[in-house]
Amino acid sequence: MAAEIFTEDYKITNFETNLHGTITLQYLLDVIVQASEDQSQAINLGTEKVQENGVTWVVIQYDVDIKELPKAGQPVKLQTQGTSYTKSFANRHFWIRDMDGHILVEVKSLWVMMNLTTRKMVRIPESVVTPYGSEKVKRLERLHKLHKFDVDNAKKMKFPVTFNDIDFNGHVGNTRYINWMSDTLSFDFQKGRLPTGFSIKFEDEVRYGDQVTSEVNIIDDGNTTVHQIMVDGKARSMAEITWKKIN
Amino acid sequence: MAAEIFTEDYKITNFETNLHGTITLQYLLDVIVQASEDQSQAINLGTEKVQENGVTWVVIQYDVDIKELPKAGQPVKLQTQGTSYTKSFANRHFWIRDMDGHILVEVKSLWVMMNLTTRKMVRIPESVVTPYGSEKVKRLERLHKLHKFDVDNAKKMKFPVTFNDIDFNGHVGNTRYINWMSDTLSFDFQKGRLPTGFSIKFEDEVRYGDQVTSEVNIIDDGNTTVHQIMVDGKARSMAEITWKKIN
Repeated sequence: MAAEIFTEDYKITNFETNLHGTITLQYLLDVIVQASEDQSQAINLGTEKVQENGVTWVVIQYDVDIKELPKAGQPVKLQTQGTSYTKSFANRHFWIRDMDGHILVEVKSLWVMMNLTTRKMVRIPESVVTPYGSEKVKRLERLHKLHKFDVDNAKKMKFPVTFNDIDFNGHVGNTRYINWMSDTLSFDFQKGRLPTGFSIKFEDEVRYGDQVTSEVNIIDDGNTTVHQIMVDGKARSMAEITWKKIN
Repeated sequence: MAAEIFTEDYKITNFETNLHGTITLQYLLDVIVQASEDQSQAINLGTEKVQENGVTWVVIQYDVDIKELPKAGQPVKLQTQGTSYTKSFANRHFWIRDMDGHILVEVKSLWVMMNLTTRKMVRIPESVVTPYGSEKVKRLERLHKLHKFDVDNAKKMKFPVTFNDIDFNGHVGNTRYINWMSDTLSFDFQKGRLPTGFSIKFEDEVRYGDQVTSEVNIIDDGNTTVHQIMVDGKARSMAEITWKKIN
């Protein structure tokens, strides 16, 4: 039996959109994460409840396929499903649909469970996955393998990590990273293109007070950009964004 | 007859809140502005419609009184009223209420009309205020006079202005300024305090590609902070935030 799909209505606000009047990549992740947090609350498996066991969910990667970016004021359906899991990994799917049910955005994601004291990966307890109806499997579907980053041809930009970047769980919200990444691209680049998808991978946390360096390679005639977020010479997150020209 | 009060339901998302689990000052402004944009759309006086006359609304100041900051997941009522106007100025009020009608946040604001070509203030056309039921008055209520900024005792922090800071109207969203301001305050300062109100005044635009310097004075034993946003040595926005200690 497939895992339960949780659905909730949402309306894209004006401030979640950019010059194009379409949702920014950061808010795209923010709204789908909101849906999964609402699902978890609804079955009494919110962050606080999970952390009572000394563990917490950590996202490793999002693979985002954008058919059409939601627009300012657009009512949408947010859907999420704790699809399947192995001993150490779990898959969660997300969909943003228009009110007629057409898929606007589809997201696959990979999660692990971390021990809060040792900060090490641990075996996923059945009690935190079975309530979602998640299917136990031998192997999970592979997520996208990112393009190798070319440090020698990188353009760089620095951002301070601030109090307002810290979320209500006390960590720097990792949805923030994708905007630090896309913000390295010029005004003209972004004005003339819309993203058709992205994959983002998280390696290590960024902390309050850090100065992050966001690095970018523009490849494939501007149809693909490759990104990394560095702190103290160490990559904390990598991504690949695909683009289409407009007008 | 008093001007019409527009009301809509809203639910504070998790990502609109910070470490305290309460809405950030930027999102507080974002959600009330959303309510006024929704009111304007509803009576066919949205930004596009107004700009057909070659003019646009520009906010001069918000005075925000916070009784209680809305929390992550809290359903609230957003209210707004185009209260009154003179030849050159207009007042708009906002309220955020809990579902029992108690006021959480009350905001007064002052607006002018700008000619899009000359970038100069112009007389407010009756046609863009009477549909709100706004009352024509001789004088408007005075808004808060900000504390003088002490440049010699300022702490400073720099922020790049990026593509994601540009809103769907093509300008740097001025709600962004208040977070640049509060982000100059240390982690410990902000962890130990909650804002009880703020006044923010807008003097001039910040543009894409600018490097803004956010400057702060901490006065009155940390109960008040005074802020300014500088670009090329010129103040673009000033604010005063009041705080209460917690725990």
